[in-house]
Amino acid sequence: MKKRLNIGLIGYRFMGKAHSNALRTIPMFFDLPVEPVLKVICGLKDDVAAAAQMYGWQRYVHDWNEVVADPEIDIVAIASPGYTHAKIAVAAAANGKHIFCEKPLGMSSDEAGVMYEAARKNKVKHMVNFNYRRIPAVLLARKLVQDGRLGRIYHFKASYQQDWAADPAVPYLWRFDQRLAGAGSVADKGSHIIDLARFLVGEMIAVAGMSDIFIKERASLGNAQLKEEVTTDDAALFVARFANGALGTFQTSRIATGYKNALQFEIGGSKGCLRFNLERLNELEAYFADEESSTQGFRRILVTGPEHEYMDRWWPPGHIIGWEHAFSHQYYEFIKAIVEDYLPQPNFYDGLINQQVIEAVERAAQEKTWVTI
Amino acid sequence: MKKRLNIGLIGYRFMGKAHSNALRTIPMFFDLPVEPVLKVICGLKDDVAAAAQMYGWQRYVHDWNEVVADPEIDIVAIASPGYTHAKIAVAAAANGKHIFCEKPLGMSSDEAGVMYEAARKNKVKHMVNFNYRRIPAVLLARKLVQDGRLGRIYHFKASYQQDWAADPAVPYLWRFDQRLAGAGSVADKGSHIIDLARFLVGEMIAVAGMSDIFIKERASLGNAQLKEEVTTDDAALFVARFANGALGTFQTSRIATGYKNALQFEIGGSKGCLRFNLERLNELEAYFADEESSTQGFRRILVTGPEHEYMDRWWPPGHIIGWEHAFSHQYYEFIKAIVEDYLPQPNFYDGLINQQVIEAVERAAQEKTWVTI
Amino acid sequence: MKKRLNIGLIGYRFMGKAHSNALRTIPMFFDLPVEPVLKVICGLKDDVAAAAQMYGWQRYVHDWNEVVADPEIDIVAIASPGYTHAKIAVAAAANGKHIFCEKPLGMSSDEAGVMYEAARKNKVKHMVNFNYRRIPAVLLARKLVQDGRLGRIYHFKASYQQDWAADPAVPYLWRFDQRLAGAGSVADKGSHIIDLARFLVGEMIAVAGMSDIFIKERASLGNAQLKEEVTTDDAALFVARFANGALGTFQTSRIATGYKNALQFEIGGSKGCLRFNLERLNELEAYFADEESSTQGFRRILVTGPEHEYMDRWWPPGHIIGWEHAFSHQYYEFIKAIVEDYLPQPNFYDGLINQQVIEAVERAAQEKTWVTI
Amino acid sequence: MKKRLNIGLIGYRFMGKAHSNALRTIPMFFDLPVEPVLKVICGLKDDVAAAAQMYGWQRYVHDWNEVVADPEIDIVAIASPGYTHAKIAVAAAANGKHIFCEKPLGMSSDEAGVMYEAARKNKVKHMVNFNYRRIPAVLLARKLVQDGRLGRIYHFKASYQQDWAADPAVPYLWRFDQRLAGAGSVADKGSHIIDLARFLVGEMIAVAGMSDIFIKERASLGNAQLKEEVTTDDAALFVARFANGALGTFQTSRIATGYKNALQFEIGGSKGCLRFNLERLNELEAYFADEESSTQGFRRILVTGPEHEYMDRWWPPGHIIGWEHAFSHQYYEFIKAIVEDYLPQPNFYDGLINQQVIEAVERAAQEKTWVTI
Repeated sequence: MKKRLNIGLIGYRFMGKAHSNALRTIPMFFDLPVEPVLKVICGLKDDVAAAAQMYGWQRYVHDWNEVVADPEIDIVAIASPGYTHAKIAVAAAANGKHIFCEKPLGMSSDEAGVMYEAARKNKVKHMVNFNYRRIPAVLLARKLVQDGRLGRIYHFKASYQQDWAADPAVPYLWRFDQRLAGAGSVADKGSHIIDLARFLVGEMIAVAGMSDIFIKERASLGNAQLKEEVTTDDAALFVARFANGALGTFQTSRIATGYKNALQFEIGGSKGCLRFNLERLNELEAYFADEESSTQGFRRILVTGPEHEYMDRWWPPGHIIGWEHAFSHQYYEFIKAIVEDYLPQPNFYDGLINQQVIEAVERAAQEKTWVTI
Repeated sequence: MKKRLNIGLIGYRFMGKAHSNALRTIPMFFDLPVEPVLKVICGLKDDVAAAAQMYGWQRYVHDWNEVVADPEIDIVAIASPGYTHAKIAVAAAANGKHIFCEKPLGMSSDEAGVMYEAARKNKVKHMVNFNYRRIPAVLLARKLVQDGRLGRIYHFKASYQQDWAADPAVPYLWRFDQRLAGAGSVADKGSHIIDLARFLVGEMIAVAGMSDIFIKERASLGNAQLKEEVTTDDAALFVARFANGALGTFQTSRIATGYKNALQFEIGGSKGCLRFNLERLNELEAYFADEESSTQGFRRILVTGPEHEYMDRWWPPGHIIGWEHAFSHQYYEFIKAIVEDYLPQPNFYDGLINQQVIEAVERAAQEKTWVTI
Repeated sequence: MKKRLNIGLIGYRFMGKAHSNALRTIPMFFDLPVEPVLKVICGLKDDVAAAAQMYGWQRYVHDWNEVVADPEIDIVAIASPGYTHAKIAVAAAANGKHIFCEKPLGMSSDEAGVMYEAARKNKVKHMVNFNYRRIPAVLLARKLVQDGRLGRIYHFKASYQQDWAADPAVPYLWRFDQRLAGAGSVADKGSHIIDLARFLVGEMIAVAGMSDIFIKERASLGNAQLKEEVTTDDAALFVARFANGALGTFQTSRIATGYKNALQFEIGGSKGCLRFNLERLNELEAYFADEESSTQGFRRILVTGPEHEYMDRWWPPGHIIGWEHAFSHQYYEFIKAIVEDYLPQPNFYDGLINQQVIEAVERAAQEKTWVTI
Repeated sequence: MKKRLNIGLIGYRFMGKAHSNALRTIPMFFDLPVEPVLKVICGLKDDVAAAAQMYGWQRYVHDWNEVVADPEIDIVAIASPGYTHAKIAVAAAANGKHIFCEKPLGMSSDEAGVMYEAARKNKVKHMVNFNYRRIPAVLLARKLVQDGRLGRIYHFKASYQQDWAADPAVPYLWRFDQRLAGAGSVADKGSHIIDLARFLVGEMIAVAGMSDIFIKERASLGNAQLKEEVTTDDAALFVARFANGALGTFQTSRIATGYKNALQFEIGGSKGCLRFNLERLNELEAYFADEESSTQGFRRILVTGPEHEYMDRWWPPGHIIGWEHAFSHQYYEFIKAIVEDYLPQPNFYDGLINQQVIEAVERAAQEKTWVTI
């Protein structure tokens, strides 16, 4: 019988569901040398009990301290609100737990730094869940960049657009409150595209940009007469210089009418260009300038064949996978790293750098200046 | 504790994996009043043991007779090769098991008729897994047709194209052998688009068409010098008249270079038009002629919002689901029908009619004539 | 000073305008060894005078006999209704005029045969204006087929869909009258896609299919109470076998809601696949199976570079051309053939064969049988 | 007989050809109350003689002073290199000629200001050829914005990407020389998207950004051993704040591999979103949030119907027009303004403001700061 890795998951709503699903799925599709066990799930409210049953956790608790202190637990997975990440992670690390943490890593680069330091000092494995790195089409993009198929990189463009807040009639939610949400679109959405920029092109050295709160107040959820002030940004734009000389441009928005979950990027180089859209995550568009000129054009690669990363584990070519399996792949990589004893990527270091970039963007927007990272 | 429904699954390869995954997934996403239990999986070869463990079945057997005879079993799921369907289903029905069967239902309409009769006589619930009926975008298409948004239906066009056999160098497989495969693309691929035609537009009354074996012989898998004769069609084309007057055109191909799993259809009516492609199964394209003329156009509907069938169970808008979840939805419907005691659709009757259409097409192609159904 | 070729054009509405525009345009973009002179335009009604002035013709007449008899005239261009083609062409040929004739060539294959014979006997140059052969993207498709880039051709699919008659409320027009229009969508739209099938794949040897009049009567234009009977088909479907073994499927429709001028075709072979849509006529989609597998995909070739046929005469890459320039290219080819003294393509022979195919389709639909061509 | 407007055109290469074609085309498609006469074309080199003949000009000269001084001439059209615009325009205005001038208007905002002042003082009609304002799809976009279909505008994104300089092996051209070209992509390409931003959204009040010369030196055209220094930018990125509060982001590039002439923009508001791509200039993509939610999606509007601006003059719906007809429409508007005696748009004022924005961007890039306009 396989060795077991016991998981304790903090958080049980959207993200908790996505984590649970990944953990349930991977044993069926990936040859894991160990068996992940859904030991305990943690949530403040009573309905964590129902979640525990539905998602298949052996038990539930209301206090995360019980999870990080539990000697049975090997992995602490953090899918709770951002302001809780640091204290949980630091405690988990102190107890020698491996940590799989949602993004953004902390509420600030300072917090992220503390978390990174704690994980490192305690020699636990750590991962920050920039899940989009694990989409096969994104991995193909990275491979093509690294193989030199694009030549020298000139351009990187990325946007992450949603429209759930576009209508001024959308009522006030916790996400509109700086104290609870930490930040608006630039952190929530921006952290993903900043991570992909780093993954695909490399480090950024300077940024400039702006952000805005277009809808300055919104009706209170219970009381339409009462207006509450919005303190997190609705949208942001920034430009960046990469260390390798490439020019980057970024947009984040939660008021981009027509876009539901549209993380898009484009990488242009001297020999080729790639385009990706999360709403069609099984596809990558590619152009190669070194082919016969009369038939050059952007091609739609359906990234579902066995030659593509992870896809031999799923279904035959042309059978697409869903959004949730970036989580499956991420957990697979984390568990593999634990078993084979190496530090996986993206880890807390990536979470830290990510937050430094976000803060640079925020400062650049606030001070209307270029900020060196 | 929830009442349990014990499942016995015959077949453990591609389809068996898809069935297992659906059964494991639905309890987490759908509020089932019962708990499906992966009791026993059945396969002839030894590696069914590994499959049982990986997919989470409690035990495995090599003889399907044990499954259908097992008093513990409530549902027999048939995902084994086509020639085994009839005998398994008839035996299962005789034992009062509910039956979930892969398509095509039998090897012929005669077989399908016997299966339908057996299920009906024994008053068990039965379903044939035309899974594509359960894709949210397909359900939206059906709703729009039934709501009259397209007006009177004039046109139905469908194709199911793959390219795994396009290269004459692809070696001989069992699918090229009429005795083992039953039929070629017209049955394997055609059954799906015939079912969607019936689901979306209604019954067909007459067909004409042709099919062909383009690559007449292929090298034996073990011995490239040895050529084996291909006896199943590579591709077929047929046209059909629907009972409601609409004109239909159909194409099936396993030699359609560039297409991996491209089931496509288009429905055109006096007031609108819809287009679907399985390789982008989270989308439906729609055109409505009753809108303001200067802004009419085909729109891409991202069918991921909570207003779309099943999608409130999965992820937020814009987070796409994968191919496998048509199976999840199908099993959910089957279990609901058992619990609430009604006959679900598509059932063995649909499987029977489907096969009658396939046979009409085959005869039309062979005799070079129109065939009335 | 350049030698002149004097043109006489019969017809002055939509087609007459398109012919005039092509003749005015080509001297500016193509190095013609002769100067085409817009000598005389012919129309029955008085407003031909205004057309003559607007389009730049030196004079106008009401009787086509004057045109074909005019010793000044070198080329007779026929853009008048179909039932007038044969008598004009035969008279023009008898007078030694070169003939550029709209499609379909005649009202029947008999008429077309007479026209072909007349042109041949009188040794004049003749062309039938299947203009879509002269679209650069179509020429690229042909080149790729002929260069073997698709390998052996398995599939040809074509449709020509418009929607101007989709609404039953569209009043009665001459196009709905068999006696005036000759035929419905199968001839009007079908002739184009049949010609492209021959141009791209080769001759067809047998057809089967059906056509229908969905809206059997329509309100009289002046009197909504009065219903008039529609006697030309709204839509048709047919399948064909090519001499080279390929399978073909064709659709024509004037009731295809959402489509304005959507001539589409797809050619599939053992090594590649091509797709074209007239509404995006500067593009060709292509898939090549002989490339590196992980980056295969349908590419959109923007056919605007100097390496593409005719495009060095127009604008820089990426600057698209409009529908009308297929006419420009066709006239350029016709004039070149006259100057260099060879028979251009497509000529009356192509017009004749085209009509034979249409008649075979019509008979197949009527008699519900396969018809050998 | 119609009154005549005599045109004198300075410049005879790409732009001269485009101007000539527009002037030849409009009398055939637009009911002009006057007849534009291609009187004289001017070019320094001998081959202007061939151009004059091919494009249909009555005569040619080598010195533009002759054109602006010619009492016969009503309109001076300036399609010569940028550094010649100001002196020609000022002289033409002094002589009471109406002026149609290519963009950018001058070499600097100072020059543009002088030109604007000269035209205004002399009460001539003036137009700067931001031709893309006259594309029917762009006009539809503007109409939808002005009709409030997008609600409050939040986002404007635009890029103008070409790839002719992407390969470092492209030899040195005059466009790489600051002294001859004035500026690089930011002026050449940027002026177009800045104009569209103003046309569609309104004035900008502040900008920040960066530009770069990626390929710092290139081989001399005649002598591959000799390297010449590139002094104009290859690409630029900038962000802008609009007076109405919208956020704008802009990219220009001549090294964007895969893009031939891809001017793209996107306008997002509280109620809708529009997308445009010049490589598909007959289309506009639109999303409207005020429609029934289950069928919302980006639609492709084929902007070819008679309800769309100018399109009733061309061909039936679905018959696309080419790039060149934005020029036709622009000249039509210019002549109409002369005849009806009003100041058309875009005029030299637009040219002036455009150049002020470009200079602000250049300064922002150079000084790494935000610049208020």
